Amino acid sequence: MRAPWPMRPADELRDAVEAYLGTLSFAPDLGALEGPLRYSLESGGKRVRPVLCLAVAEAAGGSVEAALPAAAALELVHTFSLVHDDLPAMDDDAVRRGRPSAHVAFGEGVALLAGDALLAEALRLALTYESNGVGRELIGASLGMIGGQYLDVTGDDDDLARVHRLKTGRLCLAAVLMGLEVAGVAEDERTVWLALGDDVGLLFQVVDDLLDGDGYAARLGAEDARQLAQEVASRARARLDELAVDTTVLRDLVDMLAVRTG
Amino acid sequence: MRAPWPMRPADELRDAVEAYLGTLSFAPDLGALEGPLRYSLESGGKRVRPVLCLAVAEAAGGSVEAALPAAAALELVHTFSLVHDDLPAMDDDAVRRGRPSAHVAFGEGVALLAGDALLAEALRLALTYESNGVGRELIGASLGMIGGQYLDVTGDDDDLARVHRLKTGRLCLAAVLMGLEVAGVAEDERTVWLALGDDVGLLFQVVDDLLDGDGYAARLGAEDARQLAQEVASRARARLDELAVDTTVLRDLVDMLAVRTG
Repeated sequence: MRAPWPMRPADELRDAVEAYLGTLSFAPDLGALEGPLRYSLESGGKRVRPVLCLAVAEAAGGSVEAALPAAAALELVHTFSLVHDDLPAMDDDAVRRGRPSAHVAFGEGVALLAGDALLAEALRLALTYESNGVGRELIGASLGMIGGQYLDVTGDDDDLARVHRLKTGRLCLAAVLMGLEVAGVAEDERTVWLALGDDVGLLFQVVDDLLDGDGYAARLGAEDARQLAQEVASRARARLDELAVDTTVLRDLVDMLAVRTG
Repeated sequence: MRAPWPMRPADELRDAVEAYLGTLSFAPDLGALEGPLRYSLESGGKRVRPVLCLAVAEAAGGSVEAALPAAAALELVHTFSLVHDDLPAMDDDAVRRGRPSAHVAFGEGVALLAGDALLAEALRLALTYESNGVGRELIGASLGMIGGQYLDVTGDDDDLARVHRLKTGRLCLAAVLMGLEVAGVAEDERTVWLALGDDVGLLFQVVDDLLDGDGYAARLGAEDARQLAQEVASRARARLDELAVDTTVLRDLVDMLAVRTG
């Protein structure tokens, strides 16, 4: 089924996310901490989660404009996790996408506070909606991410699938659910969408591991991990076929996630 | 004016907070990170913010039971700030209320994640309410606290009153506003309450500084700081006189805050 209006392609959705993030106002109380927040957000990342949220919202009959705060909130939570993960007490990464990571650029204390502020600002954005469903999905995913990071830090990660479902899958699933919330899709009409969210999260993670040579790629071997990614992508496309809406943009997104090289 | 039912005294409200915090369920996704969260919450603190929230809710015609999630959320945000402030990158405090601080007990990485989880759990509690007003107040106060901490860390704190208003005042004010939200007090009936919230926050901070010998006590001298505390307490009592509700418990709370020794 095609929508009665032209759907925006994924690269236009990404431009919309970048534009929204670039003009985002932070709480005045944060003062000059705004600088480290903007630095961390201007990462040149792929914006997969917010684009997924916008594409789902539009496919499900909502508007991109209405979904932008939710989409941006997802990117802020993702960025919060990167800023805290890069700290010396965690992964101790000095470089993030070719630039000094936040704690190298601003010091550990400021990076810690910048991460805290990104999480809080994400929730502030999620609570600009009349109903608190968007905020509930985002906070559930944030707690899942933190739980996954804890398993990683403590080395209690013998269940790779569980760690990855928490660290990556929960926020991808939240992207789908927040898009549905904004579009006003009833809870009992979300079954296929939920399965799609799980598949996209797993697809994203497996391809990420193939690019980094760790996680699934290390556990299964590159060949089997590549096979798994193709299977999950096929499953995601089959879910899209089940949905009685225009899923062309979501299909492009799945195709891009399956073949991305960075 | 007296309420038609007996108001619960402050120590009973504190017991209610302790009982609620003790049986609080965290997100299952957090797994064994629950331990560090409980350790940090079982601090033997005064629970000033949650008790204030409950007392305001009951004085304004709401129920203590309905206000307990909001009250607990305030204590979780307060505890989040203590756990992160104690980290080596911040104040580097090894002891918190006579026990090893979280990063000493569990390691820096786990303490970082425990703080993140406390902030996220606080918001989860705030979003258990139908309306998102409680969550909005809490997130605004959290952002203010983070902004105040940033001023502290960067040494850009020549405006002591502003730093303290952000670091302590915002969460006391949120305690009042969240109590009013739960009780369903309309926004245009909150003026006196808002002023009360500001006064209680300042009173709490000035007495804290007198006990620690820093902040206002260091800036003004102990004598003048004591004088300021008495003035602010008198002003808070005058606000209570203006409110056409039973404010006996709130009056006791102001008296306790004014003379506390720990």
